[in-house]
Amino acid sequence: MSIAQKPPLGWNSWDCYGASATEEIIKQNADYMAKNLKQFGWEYVVLDIEWSEPTADSHAYHKFAELCMDEYSRLIPAPNRFPSSANGQGLKPLADYVHSLGLKFGLHIMRGIPRQAVHQNCKLLGTNKTARDIASTTSICMWNTEMYGVDCSQEGAKEYYESIFKLYAEWEVDYIKIDDICRDYPIEEVEMVKAALDSCGREMVLSLSPGPAQLEKAEHMKEHCNMWRITDDFWDKWELLYNMFERCEKWCIHSGAGHWPDADMLPIGPILQDYDKANRTKFTKDEQITMMTLWSIFRSPLIIGGELTGFDEFTLSLVTNEEIIDINQNSYGAHPLFRKSVNGVEQTAWLANCNNGDFALALFNLGEKETIVTAKLPVEGDYTISDCWNFGECLMIQNEVSCNIPPHGAKLYRLTRTK
Amino acid sequence: MSIAQKPPLGWNSWDCYGASATEEIIKQNADYMAKNLKQFGWEYVVLDIEWSEPTADSHAYHKFAELCMDEYSRLIPAPNRFPSSANGQGLKPLADYVHSLGLKFGLHIMRGIPRQAVHQNCKLLGTNKTARDIASTTSICMWNTEMYGVDCSQEGAKEYYESIFKLYAEWEVDYIKIDDICRDYPIEEVEMVKAALDSCGREMVLSLSPGPAQLEKAEHMKEHCNMWRITDDFWDKWELLYNMFERCEKWCIHSGAGHWPDADMLPIGPILQDYDKANRTKFTKDEQITMMTLWSIFRSPLIIGGELTGFDEFTLSLVTNEEIIDINQNSYGAHPLFRKSVNGVEQTAWLANCNNGDFALALFNLGEKETIVTAKLPVEGDYTISDCWNFGECLMIQNEVSCNIPPHGAKLYRLTRTK
Amino acid sequence: MSIAQKPPLGWNSWDCYGASATEEIIKQNADYMAKNLKQFGWEYVVLDIEWSEPTADSHAYHKFAELCMDEYSRLIPAPNRFPSSANGQGLKPLADYVHSLGLKFGLHIMRGIPRQAVHQNCKLLGTNKTARDIASTTSICMWNTEMYGVDCSQEGAKEYYESIFKLYAEWEVDYIKIDDICRDYPIEEVEMVKAALDSCGREMVLSLSPGPAQLEKAEHMKEHCNMWRITDDFWDKWELLYNMFERCEKWCIHSGAGHWPDADMLPIGPILQDYDKANRTKFTKDEQITMMTLWSIFRSPLIIGGELTGFDEFTLSLVTNEEIIDINQNSYGAHPLFRKSVNGVEQTAWLANCNNGDFALALFNLGEKETIVTAKLPVEGDYTISDCWNFGECLMIQNEVSCNIPPHGAKLYRLTRTK
Amino acid sequence: MSIAQKPPLGWNSWDCYGASATEEIIKQNADYMAKNLKQFGWEYVVLDIEWSEPTADSHAYHKFAELCMDEYSRLIPAPNRFPSSANGQGLKPLADYVHSLGLKFGLHIMRGIPRQAVHQNCKLLGTNKTARDIASTTSICMWNTEMYGVDCSQEGAKEYYESIFKLYAEWEVDYIKIDDICRDYPIEEVEMVKAALDSCGREMVLSLSPGPAQLEKAEHMKEHCNMWRITDDFWDKWELLYNMFERCEKWCIHSGAGHWPDADMLPIGPILQDYDKANRTKFTKDEQITMMTLWSIFRSPLIIGGELTGFDEFTLSLVTNEEIIDINQNSYGAHPLFRKSVNGVEQTAWLANCNNGDFALALFNLGEKETIVTAKLPVEGDYTISDCWNFGECLMIQNEVSCNIPPHGAKLYRLTRTK
Repeated sequence: MSIAQKPPLGWNSWDCYGASATEEIIKQNADYMAKNLKQFGWEYVVLDIEWSEPTADSHAYHKFAELCMDEYSRLIPAPNRFPSSANGQGLKPLADYVHSLGLKFGLHIMRGIPRQAVHQNCKLLGTNKTARDIASTTSICMWNTEMYGVDCSQEGAKEYYESIFKLYAEWEVDYIKIDDICRDYPIEEVEMVKAALDSCGREMVLSLSPGPAQLEKAEHMKEHCNMWRITDDFWDKWELLYNMFERCEKWCIHSGAGHWPDADMLPIGPILQDYDKANRTKFTKDEQITMMTLWSIFRSPLIIGGELTGFDEFTLSLVTNEEIIDINQNSYGAHPLFRKSVNGVEQTAWLANCNNGDFALALFNLGEKETIVTAKLPVEGDYTISDCWNFGECLMIQNEVSCNIPPHGAKLYRLTRTK
Repeated sequence: MSIAQKPPLGWNSWDCYGASATEEIIKQNADYMAKNLKQFGWEYVVLDIEWSEPTADSHAYHKFAELCMDEYSRLIPAPNRFPSSANGQGLKPLADYVHSLGLKFGLHIMRGIPRQAVHQNCKLLGTNKTARDIASTTSICMWNTEMYGVDCSQEGAKEYYESIFKLYAEWEVDYIKIDDICRDYPIEEVEMVKAALDSCGREMVLSLSPGPAQLEKAEHMKEHCNMWRITDDFWDKWELLYNMFERCEKWCIHSGAGHWPDADMLPIGPILQDYDKANRTKFTKDEQITMMTLWSIFRSPLIIGGELTGFDEFTLSLVTNEEIIDINQNSYGAHPLFRKSVNGVEQTAWLANCNNGDFALALFNLGEKETIVTAKLPVEGDYTISDCWNFGECLMIQNEVSCNIPPHGAKLYRLTRTK
Repeated sequence: MSIAQKPPLGWNSWDCYGASATEEIIKQNADYMAKNLKQFGWEYVVLDIEWSEPTADSHAYHKFAELCMDEYSRLIPAPNRFPSSANGQGLKPLADYVHSLGLKFGLHIMRGIPRQAVHQNCKLLGTNKTARDIASTTSICMWNTEMYGVDCSQEGAKEYYESIFKLYAEWEVDYIKIDDICRDYPIEEVEMVKAALDSCGREMVLSLSPGPAQLEKAEHMKEHCNMWRITDDFWDKWELLYNMFERCEKWCIHSGAGHWPDADMLPIGPILQDYDKANRTKFTKDEQITMMTLWSIFRSPLIIGGELTGFDEFTLSLVTNEEIIDINQNSYGAHPLFRKSVNGVEQTAWLANCNNGDFALALFNLGEKETIVTAKLPVEGDYTISDCWNFGECLMIQNEVSCNIPPHGAKLYRLTRTK
Repeated sequence: MSIAQKPPLGWNSWDCYGASATEEIIKQNADYMAKNLKQFGWEYVVLDIEWSEPTADSHAYHKFAELCMDEYSRLIPAPNRFPSSANGQGLKPLADYVHSLGLKFGLHIMRGIPRQAVHQNCKLLGTNKTARDIASTTSICMWNTEMYGVDCSQEGAKEYYESIFKLYAEWEVDYIKIDDICRDYPIEEVEMVKAALDSCGREMVLSLSPGPAQLEKAEHMKEHCNMWRITDDFWDKWELLYNMFERCEKWCIHSGAGHWPDADMLPIGPILQDYDKANRTKFTKDEQITMMTLWSIFRSPLIIGGELTGFDEFTLSLVTNEEIIDINQNSYGAHPLFRKSVNGVEQTAWLANCNNGDFALALFNLGEKETIVTAKLPVEGDYTISDCWNFGECLMIQNEVSCNIPPHGAKLYRLTRTK
């Protein structure tokens, strides 16, 4: 009930490390966050996929790879990659480390039960049934060969899901990102996951991946998880960012305390995708401003994808702008004011309310030429204006604002009524 | 630019009189409005379809009926039904009468050019082209036989539309409801209509019918008209009211000064449909409360459909509730908070901001049994509560409200922050 | 019952003259047919669209043009274009002329009732109802502005259709091509047309246009008309001919005595389309052979589109090949044997039974390079081969045939069993 | 090239035994066929699914069951169910037995490679690649958990398929029914299977299951297999039989020597489905006549589903009617003549040519009341009539036949021209 009352802020290992994150990598990013970001509200450090796979070494999955597993069909960390997990300690030592920095620890899991447990017909905790009994015969992930979905109508299914959440609670995990469950949305399995979490004795944020989620499932998701992906994997390509405006338009009315439509991770700074170790985000600075502005006013969870220790000054400025974070954390009612073409250049404006009565107004140039964007508040009166990105240069008359915006760029203002 | 900055409030002849309204009927409703409703903000008196058809006598259309028309292919009032229009005076005398009461006069027109003008190959004003030249060969209305659509690519088309708006300006019309243009949305014809209105020298509200409008045309409609129907004809049936919640959810982000998604007329009081002259609305009182509450917070134009002179005390109370009208006229940012089933009863809540910083919170019971609805504001704090419909009996703790609601019923609250 | 027991053979004015055929044109083509084609089985001379329109002068329609009409809302010939029709004689004198040559006379009509009759509210024969009473309010042709569909549920509708067929019977018409009725297939109107024809006292072929007809209406069409178009207008473009193979594959099982899927007219010889008076068919000779071969084995009606008096020797040879005509008139059971790509060249083969026990085998090269096509009969045995187009050069072993075919070309063989 | 030149005739274990057929069952049915059916042309004895599964005991599949497999990932018979297969003999001894009776031996296989081989990462014959290398990560069967599809783009895939066909050739199999490959039709895998068969050194009929096959794949199937299922599993329910008429109508033109659309097995006689050991077909006698008549004239492969040793006289008469079998084996060009409702009773007629010049004419009553069906040959002349089912009582005038047919019943005639 009290979790994720505001959009979670954190970092996730996927964008940089794919399947190959290690204990060392998690620690170094946690260290950086504690030192440089914590004071701005950032708190979750999330270990993404394949922590049970000893040979994982890139963004690619090794098909049908053997995973580390306990006697109850539960995946456990690969000790070669997570040395502190040796001797059955699991991820508890790593979580402890993160907690010691005043941060929280998140973990990625795949929906379902390991295929290797099914084909070896392994035991389950708390039931006489076996892995083979509860595996769904037709539910598989389209991009990963490790799991079978769980057939929730089978005896033992509930016990299995309870057993894994019990393990994560023992490890003191604070955030579960569950994968292969959002787009197609197997509704019984979602409900069983939520019930297992609720009964495990520890509060954890529940995040569903990958998208795009289905709009008609919005109410069910609001009640069964804390965040859900409204998009497939988001990367540093303008086309994907451009399309996010339409996604946000569809989802904005479903955002609120405890339930956040999720526009996915922020590919900023060094994006160490395995195909190019020296890679940095391909977004221009203007595009990064646009992304941060949209994620902020839309109140998406903000989960950084880049390697923190390689952040330059500009990248750091994006995630330490207090006004941007305040609007993300404390506004409400965001929605597009308009989206139109003016002199052949597409532009849009978003409006939200701040909790002190101010307005947040975001103006975007979605086109290929510099343009002027003008927007008007829905309430009469005179206002003062604060420029959250400190670009300066805008016109304001009473409740109407105009400014120049470069191609793919954005401005974000906070307006305070004076009379 | 300055028209329809708030949702229009008015009365329309269709629900009671169909195709058969007369000068006398318009006047008696205008009189009632001036005396009883004007002080609450109601101002438009709208004459609906078939004022050119001498034999119209019910909700039915007489197929291929001969219409009254001037020498330039422009429809004019049937003098037997509008005596003051004799001698080429048109609807000017009737508009004058409405204006004399401090009200405004609205008029329904069909998109296109009369078929009778085309088959007689009549003249057009301001061009050598004829009716035959500009008629579209394949564009007809699916429910009325009077008009051909205008082929906007033809020379003379622009002059025709300018000629009819010139006539309406001469008559001093304040509001045009143009029909057969919203659902399929012939985009060139919409633009030509808007341009003709803009150049006619008189401000008029432009209202498009019938719906359901297409969501992907939202931005174009925002820029080319003042209100557009989000539904097919709305009548006093629960199923239609129930479905309006989904329509409002889709359209709420497109509402704003000068551009209003329109949930259609309010079938309250006497609905003198020709099939039963003694008919009154079939909505229960709870359903009428629900309708008024949704239209209010969604900021639909409020256009009364019932015969005003037959209003009883309850009906009058629906349209003279100052809190309801204030929220309709002066709030913004309305959106659904949730829609879910609780103990088998469907419920939903809507939230909007009032222009003084208050919240408007509407709670609805969409099910068949009495139920409790609970909703929470997106902002922390302590609030006082005002019950717009004066039902009394609700619980409030800080920023959270609970109340009992009967089946198909609603409550509307205004919440003011105290700390 | 006894009509169209074999596919009709004839000529039609559309391909050359569009809306502008005249009495003189019909006569000159009838004369040519009587002299050169009649002995091969050709018999129908069909006057196509717009014979009531005095100003028709090309393939284009004059929108909303005034038509010649009798007092009962029935269209009659424009006397300036059909002088013999003067004094109320209608097309009887022209039909008489065609009959005097030992040929039959066909006539095009549009489904429905003239709009001008509706807007003038004209009388109908044999009923007190008027044109306005029976016109459908929403049924119009998408490419011609002359008619409203008939609302078959209205009193008077049946009498109207009977009145026009009575007129055609008086004129001694032998073949009605009714337009705007096949693709969308208004089923009540088709049935009313068929009943009117059946009761008019004269046998006439009933042909429905334009296509593509809907496959699921096949059985209804078999029982209510004699031929129906399986394609939109067919012209001399390879793409259209190529696509006909798929259409024929779908329709072949529905061909039989009295009911013929119709692949449309043969654009051969001079195609005097108004945009180029000197035009001849753009099909190559090989493509014309392919077309004649497919139409023959598929048993499409053969209706020549080119101006007969301009036929050259090659064109004449296409329509006077007795073997081709015999297969068209006297085979059955046609179906594709295969359609495949061999060495990158698409080829197909069709097989039919001749009524004397022979097989007709058509081989087609649908590709862009010369290729060898091989096909095998479904019955063992030894056969002799006859080459219907006299190309010579083919291989035959027992019941298997191979031959070279140029791109877009075809061969047609007749195989007779010897043991 | 020379295989399946006529529709295969045989018996299959599925309808009676599901997953649980044994060596004894195969032998007893082979014995019966040799003694009672062989002389009528029946020859294939087909062992259906799960012969590698030791615990199979009904129509149900045991999910994730352990299968018998050789060291090269190839499934082999479960020796408890097929004792003669002990010591690596495979199904060769059983095939030998069937051959000794003058019959042929058929075998069911699943598309793909055993999941157990993949998860154990077993070897493949003739390549260094392993089962894990060639398994498709996303291709699974929707109703059976044993196999992964083969990723044909992987090195080793071809060698695997060659290795299994090599094994079947060693066993001297004559007919392969490959499952989970027809409906979705993984085209590369079909081609790889066909190539493996072609190179294995032994001719075998190739049969694809389950349907419904896709019509647009017809030509590819004609060239890559000998029979393919046009329906999902067919059982003894009238609705399924009724629907087969439409399937046959779509597929009839694709039938021919070597390539047969397959209407599935004949559920006649004892259908020992595990849920009721005493079960006999639920089809009435009339429905069985209808089925045999349609399968005969359509030239479906005839594969008996019932336990042969329990055949009664009527059932035996269905499969030993020489005229029915002759039409199935030796006619061609079958197609529906019509399908229509006469006096509220649906009826249809099918026509085919016999190889001696006779016609086969099948008349069906698809309705719920007795009715008269009348059909006419496409060729004029006088005919004598032979009643293949010996019902007697029909009318014939020249080339037209009429007869009474009971509900769900059929008649099949052979017509011979006399002049």
